[in-house]
Amino acid sequence: MATAHETPAPDRVPPAKFEVLVAPPADGSTRARLGRLTLPHGVVETPQFMPVGTNATVKALDPHDLRAAGATIILSNTYHLYLRPGHERIARLGGLHQFMAWNRPILTDSGGFQVVSLGELRKIDDGGVTFQSHLDGSYHRFTPELSIEVQEALGSDIAVAFDQPVPPASTAPTALAEATARSNVWAARSLEAHTRPDQAIFGIIQGGLDPELRAESTRVVAGLPFDGICIGGLAGDETPAQREATLDVVVELLEAAADPRPRYLMGLGSPVDLLEAVHRGIDIFDSVLPARVARNGQLWVPGGRLNMRNAQFVDDQRPVQEGCRCPLCRNFSRAYLAHLFRSEELLAYRLATCHNLTFTLDFMAEIRSQLRSGTFAAGLPELRATATPSRSSASAVQSQ
Amino acid sequence: MATAHETPAPDRVPPAKFEVLVAPPADGSTRARLGRLTLPHGVVETPQFMPVGTNATVKALDPHDLRAAGATIILSNTYHLYLRPGHERIARLGGLHQFMAWNRPILTDSGGFQVVSLGELRKIDDGGVTFQSHLDGSYHRFTPELSIEVQEALGSDIAVAFDQPVPPASTAPTALAEATARSNVWAARSLEAHTRPDQAIFGIIQGGLDPELRAESTRVVAGLPFDGICIGGLAGDETPAQREATLDVVVELLEAAADPRPRYLMGLGSPVDLLEAVHRGIDIFDSVLPARVARNGQLWVPGGRLNMRNAQFVDDQRPVQEGCRCPLCRNFSRAYLAHLFRSEELLAYRLATCHNLTFTLDFMAEIRSQLRSGTFAAGLPELRATATPSRSSASAVQSQ
Repeated sequence: MATAHETPAPDRVPPAKFEVLVAPPADGSTRARLGRLTLPHGVVETPQFMPVGTNATVKALDPHDLRAAGATIILSNTYHLYLRPGHERIARLGGLHQFMAWNRPILTDSGGFQVVSLGELRKIDDGGVTFQSHLDGSYHRFTPELSIEVQEALGSDIAVAFDQPVPPASTAPTALAEATARSNVWAARSLEAHTRPDQAIFGIIQGGLDPELRAESTRVVAGLPFDGICIGGLAGDETPAQREATLDVVVELLEAAADPRPRYLMGLGSPVDLLEAVHRGIDIFDSVLPARVARNGQLWVPGGRLNMRNAQFVDDQRPVQEGCRCPLCRNFSRAYLAHLFRSEELLAYRLATCHNLTFTLDFMAEIRSQLRSGTFAAGLPELRATATPSRSSASAVQSQ
Repeated sequence: MATAHETPAPDRVPPAKFEVLVAPPADGSTRARLGRLTLPHGVVETPQFMPVGTNATVKALDPHDLRAAGATIILSNTYHLYLRPGHERIARLGGLHQFMAWNRPILTDSGGFQVVSLGELRKIDDGGVTFQSHLDGSYHRFTPELSIEVQEALGSDIAVAFDQPVPPASTAPTALAEATARSNVWAARSLEAHTRPDQAIFGIIQGGLDPELRAESTRVVAGLPFDGICIGGLAGDETPAQREATLDVVVELLEAAADPRPRYLMGLGSPVDLLEAVHRGIDIFDSVLPARVARNGQLWVPGGRLNMRNAQFVDDQRPVQEGCRCPLCRNFSRAYLAHLFRSEELLAYRLATCHNLTFTLDFMAEIRSQLRSGTFAAGLPELRATATPSRSSASAVQSQ
């Protein structure tokens, strides 16, 4: 499978080039690998985490903050930008990169997750999804073809096929089978609709927690000439063990086929969850989690979390994390941040977000460093101790 | 008057040194002057505008943003910091400069304005003001002595005497006379209570719009060895003409006495109002106005205002102000800012605030440049055209 994307037409420079720099060790101790994804707007080292800029802005940050945190690629949401300010407007204004002054790679999702989770009174048929805007109640219809049209207008480096995700653990078998079959068909329609030569397109594997549906979706999607493989329908209401078993189904099939493409697990954001998924062969992640919990006053530090709303911090002169390179930790005390949160000052949200994204991106950089030096498998216990403890309630926050 | 502050005790380095670099021209065409105020944390060129950092943060900005906008001194509010996080806590944490990571000069107000305008169920007597916190309803009492104690604990470069401001145009004559007399007495008590040798203290002239009360307050306050002279009880419900007539009363008396100290008009923020007050001999200003209207989507440009909530801007590719050096204008379009405001994204408030403060501080720099080159009086018509049009409703926003 996946032969088509390896033999591009000679007149087309592939918009995505993925190289595995360090393959998983032959001893089977881990499936983790070091890679490099070259896109029209720059190079992304993998494993990598993408901060989420829902409305063409990562909440509370500017592009300089993002670069300082170490972000090399961000995700932006097709559903939100389609509704406001409109993809055609962004295209007229020079595309999403120019609009938001971010000159590094951008991945747009397909809108599938938001149409289903945010759209009201949605009606799903084999053609697409009809829904009401969460902003003004107006009626809209998303199809694979429209999703691709919107993403081409936005001009992201990577577009994503339109799908129908469902909650993995709480969806009835027949509904799951139907959504998976539909997503498999929509993957082909999305690819067929895609025309923009300077934009990569990734397909999405669905299938919930059912091993057979996952395997079938993997075979279908990986059999199409996508530039990369998304694994959707996880980072939801499943347990870590269920997620890991499902990843194993997908990655074992991809490995068996020597699939050369990057693997992107959608919506996962807790560091320890990222670590375990890297260990199982995932290259790319996105989540609103680090930024969202930051805005609620939850700061990530090695081995734990600090809740800035706790009384203990109002007199604490120490930085949030000793030695952290972020602007919060370099300049301000826990006491000051605790004061800003209590006063509901806007600076609190920015500084806390800078920290949690720096923590997450530095954690990914540490993972890459260990992969480069061949110490990742041996270093797993220490990396697990560094990663913020996972909570199912916290890790169940999808990008939206 | 004002002889005492010119002959400091030999063992005391004056915490404030003010030099008039270019005196008003002898032809009487303007009372504007160029000056330099040297404070413990740095030099402030005058005429100068102080952004307001109510809760130890200028809303939406960090210290780097403030420096980039050109701020050399900021104001912070004694009333707010006393209530939260508490002046003793800030002192334990190393003082206000260290707490908020701002290493340039800070002026703290006395809390008089906020106690009267924000405190609930306030009761004013000759000893002080008893009031309820606007945060939690707890009871507090401010006196001149406590105001100074709080400001010394905060460690600002400039403390300000405790006073009782009243709305200038709408206060009955007997109430105005009583408040003015009380403020005059409290000025002396504030000065008496002040002990910190590395902190300047400014007195406040009150008197509303009554020329005799203003003159009396000017004689009393300027007769005390303060390091600078505040003019309070304006930038309220008065007309520009009333304000200007009142300024003339004060400044003529100070000029007649060859008073060497800086003059600070409290609470004025609209550029054209600043210009007219500079023209009448004022050196220093503060206001929340440029930042507050920015957060509402009002952007200041030469000769006008742009309201980013107007539909016309959603497709406007131009920067808010051509040639402006602020991060908004250097990187983003009006269309993007309009989108951020519509999406209620936090970045909108920061970018708009950066712009309006840059505009205000650059306008003051242009005034200083013309004073330096002797072209200020001749350049007044052009400066008036550049300044954003004043509206009584907009200029009536006091710092709080």
